[in-house]
Amino acid sequence: MSATDVISFSRGAPSLDIVDIEGIKTASRKALEEDPGAIAGYGNAYGFPKMREWLANKHKVSVDNVLVTNGSLQADAFLFDLMVNEDTPVIVERPTYDRTLLGLRQRKGQLHPVTVDDDGINVEELEALLKSGVRPALAHIIPNFQNPAGVTLSETKRRRLLELASEYDFMIFEDDPYLDIRFRGESLPTMQEMDHNDRVVYASSFSKTVCPGLRTGYMIGPKEFIDRVAKLAGTVYIAPNNFAQATIYQFAASGDIDRSIATVCQALEERVDQLATSLRKHLPQAEFVTPDGGYFLWVDLGEGVDVAKVAPRAAELGVQVVKGTDFVLQGGESSLRLAYSAVPAERIDEGVRLLAQAVEETKA
Amino acid sequence: MSATDVISFSRGAPSLDIVDIEGIKTASRKALEEDPGAIAGYGNAYGFPKMREWLANKHKVSVDNVLVTNGSLQADAFLFDLMVNEDTPVIVERPTYDRTLLGLRQRKGQLHPVTVDDDGINVEELEALLKSGVRPALAHIIPNFQNPAGVTLSETKRRRLLELASEYDFMIFEDDPYLDIRFRGESLPTMQEMDHNDRVVYASSFSKTVCPGLRTGYMIGPKEFIDRVAKLAGTVYIAPNNFAQATIYQFAASGDIDRSIATVCQALEERVDQLATSLRKHLPQAEFVTPDGGYFLWVDLGEGVDVAKVAPRAAELGVQVVKGTDFVLQGGESSLRLAYSAVPAERIDEGVRLLAQAVEETKA
Repeated sequence: MSATDVISFSRGAPSLDIVDIEGIKTASRKALEEDPGAIAGYGNAYGFPKMREWLANKHKVSVDNVLVTNGSLQADAFLFDLMVNEDTPVIVERPTYDRTLLGLRQRKGQLHPVTVDDDGINVEELEALLKSGVRPALAHIIPNFQNPAGVTLSETKRRRLLELASEYDFMIFEDDPYLDIRFRGESLPTMQEMDHNDRVVYASSFSKTVCPGLRTGYMIGPKEFIDRVAKLAGTVYIAPNNFAQATIYQFAASGDIDRSIATVCQALEERVDQLATSLRKHLPQAEFVTPDGGYFLWVDLGEGVDVAKVAPRAAELGVQVVKGTDFVLQGGESSLRLAYSAVPAERIDEGVRLLAQAVEETKA
Repeated sequence: MSATDVISFSRGAPSLDIVDIEGIKTASRKALEEDPGAIAGYGNAYGFPKMREWLANKHKVSVDNVLVTNGSLQADAFLFDLMVNEDTPVIVERPTYDRTLLGLRQRKGQLHPVTVDDDGINVEELEALLKSGVRPALAHIIPNFQNPAGVTLSETKRRRLLELASEYDFMIFEDDPYLDIRFRGESLPTMQEMDHNDRVVYASSFSKTVCPGLRTGYMIGPKEFIDRVAKLAGTVYIAPNNFAQATIYQFAASGDIDRSIATVCQALEERVDQLATSLRKHLPQAEFVTPDGGYFLWVDLGEGVDVAKVAPRAAELGVQVVKGTDFVLQGGESSLRLAYSAVPAERIDEGVRLLAQAVEETKA
């Protein structure tokens, strides 16, 4: 089987048909015409000024609160560099983004996983943990269309998290790359917007609204924190990529980004609806929450299914998935993550059918 | 005085007139036409395949030995992350690049500075240090047109360094961003080329041959080392910027990069010659080696001159320089670094005249 025949539910990346290459071409040309000096030079660790202004305006904060990074994972890395040392207690969601777990483990943080319910992290469980004496420096939260669970944190829980952060003196890292990729329902306010006590460091990205290959993300936080990150970033890479930033700025300022987001959302809604339909048809035992946005759907296949066996068999059949165990410290053996961002709707049913075949063939 | 009136000898960046913006425009358009999928996606931590192949070919190594980074300072950072912990002995040149010192100090490395002579690091002084029992993990060497000293490491010394590295079991970090910016004399072989014992990790950059704003550098090293860096890079930023890499690849493959290098070299030669002439005229007591390439000229103004006073006074007069003390752990009070990369030849004499005025006004 050739690589192009593979149906990949594994990687959270867009298919090429939903990336506006022509728009990026126009934007990069405009960037080189309008800001050649900025593109030719180093720039500074905070980011390209027009990009920062655009972001400050979007998030209704001061430019001083904004710092652009080479993708939003780089924002995670800087935050962890500054806040997480050996044995630093950190709250993580269970399940959560595998690269978050990896980054925290590299720094030998003391991880405290808290269950993610259908409306986001279980705040009672978190509160009990805090009452038991755990004093985290940081809680890592993916509020919208969580990776991998696909669920969204309710407004009530957002408020409660902010209260707990103030009461127990920790920071919330609101990791929000999927913010604008909502294809159903009403947007909720970010914790960054709701916060009045400098309790939130927020990060997002253009990987889902423009494309990943321009590697541009950003952080929003208290000025003194942003200044510390800038100082660190300056010693690591001097400045984030000015060419990518100036291109994205033009793409955003022209309004092309809104069209791009609409294209992405329409395609993803179609894909997730097909995915849910196919799961009900081919894997009726599967439990899942159909997301209102984002890239991921989390499936539990129930007892008797060992995804450690299902995943390699599915790969042999031409379907790639990611094992649930990658997203938790313990457990997750009967779960898996399906990314629907890269699979055109017309191939999804075939993918799920083959996945169901792998489940059937590997049953205990 | 407006910022544009300032004569900046402070930053190692090109002036806009020697950056081929039109060539970059053409290259980015071609990149989006030929490799839209690569630009739309994440890519991988090793870098854009065509870029790696081009680099492997340039340096006559295997693709497996090449990894692209977001600028070459990022290569330093990864190398230091992997090799330098608290109290790790590291050889540094004296003087050396200020950001190198900063990166090593952040990691609490034990720094051993070794004098830089007119033909590069003093290998006898290094050998004496090794004989005294110092066992470095790493020696950081800028072989061509050293920053800040402007001098080039002789071929004899390159060979001797490799012998010492084998004998005393340390790695050489050959930090070589100025390799192609030679405007006089013959190129010397890199230590990476001369090495037969996997003793060299090499880094270079497109910041001087294309421009800094595309933030693209690279490392060459033993495969197992490159694999370790890739693993780390994947946890920090997933992949280096594919858009910048695909653009630079097109710029390089079309041959535009050779024209760009010729433009840069011609301008820099003119600037350095003017700078040397103006220094002899306005500051006859200045001691310096006129570089055969690169961006920097290092000046010693002799006893009685305190650059800590000269630099701020010069800035008031509209001329920016960097104090010698930034590039050494101790000493350097009567030295300063002049970057001639950003100052058009016709403004250099005025800049040096004002610098001489600042020296005169601040004399003890």
